[in-house]
Amino acid sequence: MSELIDAAAKLDAADPLAGLRERFVLDDTVYLDGNSLGALPAAVPDRVADVVRRQWGELRIRSWEESGWWTAPERIGDRIAPLVGAGPGQIVVGDSTSVNVFKALVAAVRLAGDGRDEILVDATTFPTDGYIAGSAARMTGCTLRPVAPAEVPGALTDRTAAVLLNHVDYRTGRLHDLPGLTAAVHEAGAYAVWDLCHSAGALPVGLDEHGVGLAVGCTYKYLNGGPGSPAYLYVRRDLQSRFDSPLPGWNSHAEPFGMRPGYTPADGAPRARVGTPDILSMLALEAALEVWDGVSIEAVRAKSLALTDFFLECVAAYVPEGRVESLTPAGHAERGSQVALRCSPKLSASFEQGGAPIAGEVMKRLIGRGVVGDFRRPDVLRFGFTPLYVGFGDAERAARVLAEVLVARARPHRA
Amino acid sequence: MSELIDAAAKLDAADPLAGLRERFVLDDTVYLDGNSLGALPAAVPDRVADVVRRQWGELRIRSWEESGWWTAPERIGDRIAPLVGAGPGQIVVGDSTSVNVFKALVAAVRLAGDGRDEILVDATTFPTDGYIAGSAARMTGCTLRPVAPAEVPGALTDRTAAVLLNHVDYRTGRLHDLPGLTAAVHEAGAYAVWDLCHSAGALPVGLDEHGVGLAVGCTYKYLNGGPGSPAYLYVRRDLQSRFDSPLPGWNSHAEPFGMRPGYTPADGAPRARVGTPDILSMLALEAALEVWDGVSIEAVRAKSLALTDFFLECVAAYVPEGRVESLTPAGHAERGSQVALRCSPKLSASFEQGGAPIAGEVMKRLIGRGVVGDFRRPDVLRFGFTPLYVGFGDAERAARVLAEVLVARARPHRA
Repeated sequence: MSELIDAAAKLDAADPLAGLRERFVLDDTVYLDGNSLGALPAAVPDRVADVVRRQWGELRIRSWEESGWWTAPERIGDRIAPLVGAGPGQIVVGDSTSVNVFKALVAAVRLAGDGRDEILVDATTFPTDGYIAGSAARMTGCTLRPVAPAEVPGALTDRTAAVLLNHVDYRTGRLHDLPGLTAAVHEAGAYAVWDLCHSAGALPVGLDEHGVGLAVGCTYKYLNGGPGSPAYLYVRRDLQSRFDSPLPGWNSHAEPFGMRPGYTPADGAPRARVGTPDILSMLALEAALEVWDGVSIEAVRAKSLALTDFFLECVAAYVPEGRVESLTPAGHAERGSQVALRCSPKLSASFEQGGAPIAGEVMKRLIGRGVVGDFRRPDVLRFGFTPLYVGFGDAERAARVLAEVLVARARPHRA
Repeated sequence: MSELIDAAAKLDAADPLAGLRERFVLDDTVYLDGNSLGALPAAVPDRVADVVRRQWGELRIRSWEESGWWTAPERIGDRIAPLVGAGPGQIVVGDSTSVNVFKALVAAVRLAGDGRDEILVDATTFPTDGYIAGSAARMTGCTLRPVAPAEVPGALTDRTAAVLLNHVDYRTGRLHDLPGLTAAVHEAGAYAVWDLCHSAGALPVGLDEHGVGLAVGCTYKYLNGGPGSPAYLYVRRDLQSRFDSPLPGWNSHAEPFGMRPGYTPADGAPRARVGTPDILSMLALEAALEVWDGVSIEAVRAKSLALTDFFLECVAAYVPEGRVESLTPAGHAERGSQVALRCSPKLSASFEQGGAPIAGEVMKRLIGRGVVGDFRRPDVLRFGFTPLYVGFGDAERAARVLAEVLVARARPHRA
């Protein structure tokens, strides 16, 4: 045990990103739930106070122009762009991920054109993508077919219009092959829509490099934008003039204040906007993105892999065999920035409480001891590693406390 | 002039709502643009600071449960409900107005059923409603027909599925006959969708009383929720089980954390939710709604009419005839809570500057002298009267400054 504690200390001492933790408001909790809600960046509270008190309270309506409210969706989109490998002018921020999935999928089907009437959707996806894809299919006269990501190349036909894929699986943490799958989809004459919720801010995405056409993502996980902060939509530059939105709100009009009865879409990324942008949340996100100043996403990726490797090593060393099993791929090329551990059914004797899921009870005890992850039904413990503020000492402590919780409770009950 | 100043002072002294102004952060500006962006309620800054620093910064992910984040859309919906005459459990807050118009219209068409394939839309509407109605029509196989509100009863046929109407016209301030038009639409077997952006918080709406089926509205005008604060959607209780959303995000699922691949809609108002709620903006709105504690919307309406009457009286007294013309109906039954004045083309000689609209130049000068309204192309000055924080003295001063601006500049140029 002390060897791993020493190893963690050495790794932390040598970590070039260790100083970034100061850019966040944190306590001594081991916070491994940044893949659900990122921690609070230190710059956010004062910025939000200024937005509320001065921009809204004093300047009021003038702030739409003077405080840059109106152009925030594109401006903040350009701030996210380098983190996902996109040049400027291709991302707008606004609406929820679900709404953006709808915009992107319907637009993809329209781009694909007549004769293509099938949408493929990642069968392992976070459910909302599947539900929204079902609606997009219904409303565009398409059929919807769930397919495991690895089987997408074999499932493509000349009727495939669009394919909705997750870059990283929300449950297992598996990283899918964005370059290869995108190329296969394009080869078949269809459009790929990538959901980057669990990859943006944790690893390089390379949207421009890999020729991705459309992508969406949330901003409250590894981008630390705050609870329910607005999502974003990427539309590749050469597709923008043919991007045909199913939600053509006035913000997407070529002349929004012309108040014209006829709709003429704006050029460029603003075409993907819809209604009035949600300024408080949007400007909190803008302040949150300042933590990325001078940070390379490649360095973040290197630390993320080192952290998850080290956590898995500690779990293997501390937790008796057979209690948990990693669902997260061992290979770096297939791993996102989280570790998902499945609780063994053998644990049920000591943990099951009135039918409640074992993993839920284990996570509750971990949280009670200052190690915060989350659980996903029925049996998965999720530990997200945000390299900007999680260290190797955190990883060691999380594994150690996990082992203590599992060992303490796995003893046979004595009557 | 001094008579009207005295009259204003007396009216303010007798105003039972005068004390509500203290619930807002205001300066000596005459702020008549609350129909675009409501003023900052005094309770908001501290509440938002608490949401950011404690709920997000300290409790982090636990706040979804412990701080009531997850249930905010319904809880805040119930807070808005009495202001629009709705019983609890029928309103959810979230998304923009445009997105809610889409949800409501598509759901209305689906409620209307087969054989009904036409959507009527208020031809004088705020443009986004028309654009979104166009998309809803396109995606449900309907045709779209713009009709002036007064002509709706004559335009209804047995093919009409849905009618999208504005309660108050954003430009002229005209109040439409919600009870009568709703009854006519229902009589024809169609569904009315009401846009309450310019009425909610300014006058009684009576959604339940008049049997309205679906309604949407923004919260940043007379509800003072802040820039781009989330909109809301009302679905009448007996329609909820048949409400078929085109945006069935995971928040609308019967068991959102079940993460099931199949979609089963929630019962009740949450069925109209979509994605993760935007918590900072939503809880700012919740704090903003506290200004309504103990305030009756009937009293607000009475003051609103008195204010607009008095403003029109002052304009008539101060502004030389022929300079401006009111587009806002004189009859109380047809008036919202704003006064729209059209600038006479005769003003152009002295105001037109390089082709810029006259009304824009007039409004710029008014703002420079501390009277803030806005202008709508090509020639309309809009003055919104928010009875919670606008007084009769403000109305008198606004009319007086307007007259000074118009008279000063309307003198013939001397060469």
